[in-house]
Formats: sequence, C-alpha cells, structure tokens
Amino acid sequence: MARIGAELAKPPGRDAGTFDERLERIYRTAIDVFSEYGYVAGTTSTIAAKVGLTQPALYHYADSKHAFLVLICQRIGDRMLEGMRRSTEDQALSPADRLRLFVRRHLEVIADEPAAFGIYVTESRHLERRALKTVREQEREYVGAFTSLVEEAQADGSASATIEPWLYARLALGSMNWTYRWYHGQVPLDDLIENVLRFLGVPTDAD
Amino acid sequence: MARIGAELAKPPGRDAGTFDERLERIYRTAIDVFSEYGYVAGTTSTIAAKVGLTQPALYHYADSKHAFLVLICQRIGDRMLEGMRRSTEDQALSPADRLRLFVRRHLEVIADEPAAFGIYVTESRHLERRALKTVREQEREYVGAFTSLVEEAQADGSASATIEPWLYARLALGSMNWTYRWYHGQVPLDDLIENVLRFLGVPTDAD
Repeated sequence: MARIGAELAKPPGRDAGTFDERLERIYRTAIDVFSEYGYVAGTTSTIAAKVGLTQPALYHYADSKHAFLVLICQRIGDRMLEGMRRSTEDQALSPADRLRLFVRRHLEVIADEPAAFGIYVTESRHLERRALKTVREQEREYVGAFTSLVEEAQADGSASATIEPWLYARLALGSMNWTYRWYHGQVPLDDLIENVLRFLGVPTDAD
Repeated sequence: MARIGAELAKPPGRDAGTFDERLERIYRTAIDVFSEYGYVAGTTSTIAAKVGLTQPALYHYADSKHAFLVLICQRIGDRMLEGMRRSTEDQALSPADRLRLFVRRHLEVIADEPAAFGIYVTESRHLERRALKTVREQEREYVGAFTSLVEEAQADGSASATIEPWLYARLALGSMNWTYRWYHGQVPLDDLIENVLRFLGVPTDAD
C-alpha cells in the first residue's frame, strides 16, 4: 500500500516489497496500540518504539496519527461494504441465500480483524469531520441495505415477520457485532456462522 | 452519595441535599465528558469547567479522575447484577418468566443510562487492577447466570435448543448490549422489550 495519508509517497528506487511489508507491520502495530490505549492515548512514539523506529522515521510511512485511524476505519468500512454488495445485489439468489451470505461476510470481516473492528466501532468518533462523515454514510448505506434484505426475506417467508425490519436489522447486527469482544476461535468460524443463522431464524441449507 | 472515592467525606455541617445534588451533577457531567472524549482524553479540568467549578474545588467531591470511572462502572455493574439476581433466583417463576424478566431488567438498565453503559463497555479496560478485576468477575458471574438460565429454558422448551447455551447467551447479550448505540426512544421501551423477546424466540405472555 502507499504511504499512509499520502497519494504517492513510496520513495523511488526502494525495494517495494520491503516498504510495503514495513508499512503493513506499522499498520498492524497501530491497531495493537490503539486497541490497548485507545486512539487518544495511543501515541505515534509508542507505535514507533514497538516497531523499532524513531518517531521521525515513522513519519516517513504515515502523515499523522490520524492517518492511521482513517486507514483502519476505511479498510473495515470498505470490506464491510464490499461484502454487503456482493451478498445483497445478486438478484439471481433468493433472499434467504443473500441473508446467509450477508451474515457470513459480516462475521468473516469481524473474525478476521476483531481489533481493527473494535477500533472502527469505538474510536471512529475521533475521526476528523470529513472522514467521520464518510464512515457514518457508509454505515447508513450498510444498515439500509441489510434492512431492505430483511424486508425481502420476511416477504418470502425466510425470516420471521413478527419484528419490523429496521428493528430486526439492528438486533441482528448487534448480536453479530458483539462477537469482536468475545469470539476468538472457541468454535470454528463456520460453526459460529451456522449458529448465528439459527439464532437469527434464517433457514439453513439443510432446512 | 458519599464523596467519590472516599469512605466518608461529606463535610460536616453542610446541607446534605445540596452536596449530594452537586455530586450527582458532577457525576453526570463526568459521564458526558468521558462519552465525548473517552476516559483517557476526558480531563477533570473539562469536568470542572462544565459544572462551573475550579479544578481544586472538584477534588473536594472526588479523589481523582479514576474515582469517577470506578463509580460509573460500579453503578452499572451493581444494577446489572441486582437485576440478574432478581430475575434468575426466584425459583417460584418458570424459566420462561425468569428469561423475560432478565431481558427486561437488562434492557432497562441500558435504556436508562446508555452513556454510562457505553463507558462501562469501552472504557472499563482503563480501570486500575483491583477495580478491573471486580468488573471482570461481575461480568463472568452475570454471563454465567444467564447461561444457566438459558440452559433451564431450553430444557423445558421455552428457548430454542438448537444453539449451545453459552453461545446463545453471548449472541443474545450482543443484540441487547448493542442497543446502547442506537436506541433512543424510537419505540417505547416496553415495545423494544417485546420485540427483543420475539427476536430471541422467548414465548411471550400472549403465547
């Protein structure tokens, strides 16, 4: 990836792999530091120390502490939106199939990056105005698309119609989102997904 | 309540009502400040300024910033535990009735103090060792009691037995806990509770 917060900042002539690898390691370390101390108290000097760089050297890789937070939220937001689009927009699939796919993608992103998801959830409020606006708009789009899907699934009988779609969507997202706090492989991810589908009353393939 | 962080610090001879009222106002302001800035970045000088006190005057009411966090987490933890005990320990009630009561109490605490609950959830990790230990132990007790209740309800057919109790408990708590982030009276609390019970597949009184 390019230098964090800059359009094009990879120093010419350098070995790209090494730069990208270092950048990825710094990015992962920023997640660790923000997870442990929170965004406000987590400092670039702590990040730098943990990856064995001086603070000025760290700024060779990222513009600012804020740039790390932007990237973390952007990556999670983009992965979520991509999964949502793939699962909700394929009209060749039945609503139940799309629901199953949506739940799978959602849980996969969280299980893959629980710490980054936790930062997205609890620290995105510290984003500067423009970045915050993007995150909130993406969230609205995401919840809106899921709500429409629930509505479709209720209409064709593959989701319980006793709860209004917007409320069902929020309760379902809550049960899934909370996994970032407690799920660390106690059961295989596929089993977790099957259990969540049962919990949500979505008919499984076997039904 | 007594001065925050101290056993007994109400200045003798003062009007108790006034002291308690001021203390409650300061406590509420600390919740606002920690909600807005996070615990680490939220300062006692910001709290003092918002209630119109000097910082030294604030220390007349509380030992330290940490004392506010302890109190916030303690109050939420105590209310949760009290609700849990009242709902799970009455063996005269059926498991379904106890489940209903548990869900009601849990949602009532969150709806009553969403900001304090949010701090409990996201900022309790900043508690010092002893206080953190207490919070974590209370959480384990709480989740454990709920899991046992789910087990009983599954055994007598009033909760779906297709999901293991520990997993059902965590998913159910997730759907409820997440309400602190989105529920602000869109529907009356009683309606929310009824919807959550339906969502969780707990038979309602009407069934």
